[in-house]
Amino acid sequence: MSRTFEPAARVAAAALETFMQSALARCEVDEASCLAVARALVIASRMGTDSHGLRLLPHYVRAVQGGRIHPRPAMRFTRRLAGTGYLDADDGFGHLAGYTAIDHAIAMADEVGIGAVAVGRSSHFGAAGCYALEAAERGYVGLAVCNADALVSLHHGQGPFHGTNPIAFSAPVPGQSPYLLDMATSSIPWNRVQQYAAIGRELPPNVVVDAAGRLTTDAALAASLLPLGGADFGFKGAGLAGMVEVLSATLTGMVHGFRMLPMGGEDMSTPRGVGHFFLVMRPDAFVEREVFDRGMLAYLADLRAQPALAGEEVLAPGDREWRCQANRDAEGIPLDSANVAAYAELAERLSIAPLI
Amino acid sequence: MSRTFEPAARVAAAALETFMQSALARCEVDEASCLAVARALVIASRMGTDSHGLRLLPHYVRAVQGGRIHPRPAMRFTRRLAGTGYLDADDGFGHLAGYTAIDHAIAMADEVGIGAVAVGRSSHFGAAGCYALEAAERGYVGLAVCNADALVSLHHGQGPFHGTNPIAFSAPVPGQSPYLLDMATSSIPWNRVQQYAAIGRELPPNVVVDAAGRLTTDAALAASLLPLGGADFGFKGAGLAGMVEVLSATLTGMVHGFRMLPMGGEDMSTPRGVGHFFLVMRPDAFVEREVFDRGMLAYLADLRAQPALAGEEVLAPGDREWRCQANRDAEGIPLDSANVAAYAELAERLSIAPLI
Repeated sequence: MSRTFEPAARVAAAALETFMQSALARCEVDEASCLAVARALVIASRMGTDSHGLRLLPHYVRAVQGGRIHPRPAMRFTRRLAGTGYLDADDGFGHLAGYTAIDHAIAMADEVGIGAVAVGRSSHFGAAGCYALEAAERGYVGLAVCNADALVSLHHGQGPFHGTNPIAFSAPVPGQSPYLLDMATSSIPWNRVQQYAAIGRELPPNVVVDAAGRLTTDAALAASLLPLGGADFGFKGAGLAGMVEVLSATLTGMVHGFRMLPMGGEDMSTPRGVGHFFLVMRPDAFVEREVFDRGMLAYLADLRAQPALAGEEVLAPGDREWRCQANRDAEGIPLDSANVAAYAELAERLSIAPLI
Repeated sequence: MSRTFEPAARVAAAALETFMQSALARCEVDEASCLAVARALVIASRMGTDSHGLRLLPHYVRAVQGGRIHPRPAMRFTRRLAGTGYLDADDGFGHLAGYTAIDHAIAMADEVGIGAVAVGRSSHFGAAGCYALEAAERGYVGLAVCNADALVSLHHGQGPFHGTNPIAFSAPVPGQSPYLLDMATSSIPWNRVQQYAAIGRELPPNVVVDAAGRLTTDAALAASLLPLGGADFGFKGAGLAGMVEVLSATLTGMVHGFRMLPMGGEDMSTPRGVGHFFLVMRPDAFVEREVFDRGMLAYLADLRAQPALAGEEVLAPGDREWRCQANRDAEGIPLDSANVAAYAELAERLSIAPLI
């Protein structure tokens, strides 16, 4: 979701992507990884998913320089059956693992109608939506999920257990941008809690608890996120997070989020063993393609025509992101002052041309 | 979710199942459909999913006698590719369609690791969990989703658009009952709103809106359910409902929920054209089976060991249901006074032996 802030600078997407590739290349990252990371981060930044966009580059540089992430991985894909496979990501960048897995899933879907890839020994892959979107842009229905380290309570639990375990789902729409859902299974992301704490802004009700597991709207007291559904219906968000955990940790042989090293932890040398799961389907493996296409258009036309509450809009998943993308493609991608400082420091330290 | 009520009577699961089969057989329903409907309803009632259990039988009798549901369908499965297929349910019972689709999905998963079946021209299938559970009980990971007629608002929308569009996900656990998530993508079900309205009980906040789209806790004023996430984060519940809609309506060539005849409508003669979607995966098509099994056990052990809030419990999806099932298998399945009256009336009208 796009956050409103006063940009300290704006950059063109192409310039940002080139800078990211250069920065990573200076860290001995191989070309395929450089391209994949920059591509995923720029897509997220263009769509307004700022939590998973350009702000992550300095973190990735630390992680690859520290040895947590392998700069030149030898990823190995094993097609175990005609529709399923396993990608060992060799502790490389999750973004390369994600795009590689989607490629294999598409190849299998071309043959048998559906393809699923479990990815193990991976790392943070940015926004899950990038990989579901890749499938949809190539004409397929795509699903991408990923587990993460513990930040979210169980329903009736005191402290964090699940990660924000995102679910991304995308489907092609003829003549339009894809349908794109990309959601964490908590109500809000942890970095928004940190932003609110930094400026003393009150959180909405029913989204975080303090160290004793009590509801609070004071971001400074937040110790754990509540699952989607909050104190009353959080068993649903927690159950969805659990589904993600089964798919991306258990089906990949990786540790579940509760046992995973924290993304933001001090240890930048130990691989985290992140797992992902990707599913791709050919619409025409179920019904004629024209039937599917007509159905998507009819559904979205009805959805967008629904009467909205006063002062609000009814949007399909992705509509806000495509609008933001058009805006940022025209006006540039905004950086706040912290981003500007971090990127200047990165350019200096890596001896590359500054972005701004 | 199990609702607490004072039972007017209790019956053994086997007796209930026999009664249901007899009632449907008196309506010229074929044996396969009788078995499937009774099986699904009894499973739901044993697990405490009372909204989708025995209370539905009188409705199904009306629907099949009215001609909405075909009592002797010729369901036709087409395996379009090695991992995908389409089941034309010939306007028969959704329960038979569901179990049939899961059988085909399992057969495909045995061959290619994964199998997905889109079902069209079907009808209400009861609890989605029944079909995901069937996969898990046979050792597979299962997903079942279904669209439904409009009861739930879009985020920022005024009135109902999506159905309660459930997501059911199940996975096998060695030596234990399966992991089983079965959730509507609204916070609460519509029939709970009706129950609360009938007894004048106040609803929890942030789950329904009135006819103008305003939040209310007065069940009598409820005109639409809010998607999971409520007024602030309902874009997530609405997005999940949309994913279900794409899978079970668009990928099946059926109408989306907004255009579907209401389940509870007066018209009992026109087939509703319900769509479902089922996915089955072999765990060992991704990792060695022992790795998956160990992972499930380790995840659930950690989950169940989490400290709970005072007076509460931390449960895995399904734990509450298995507990209820053990209780009801020992003490009988409870019927409230309305159920007792409806079942007596059914026995009388169909000239079969009464249940109680």
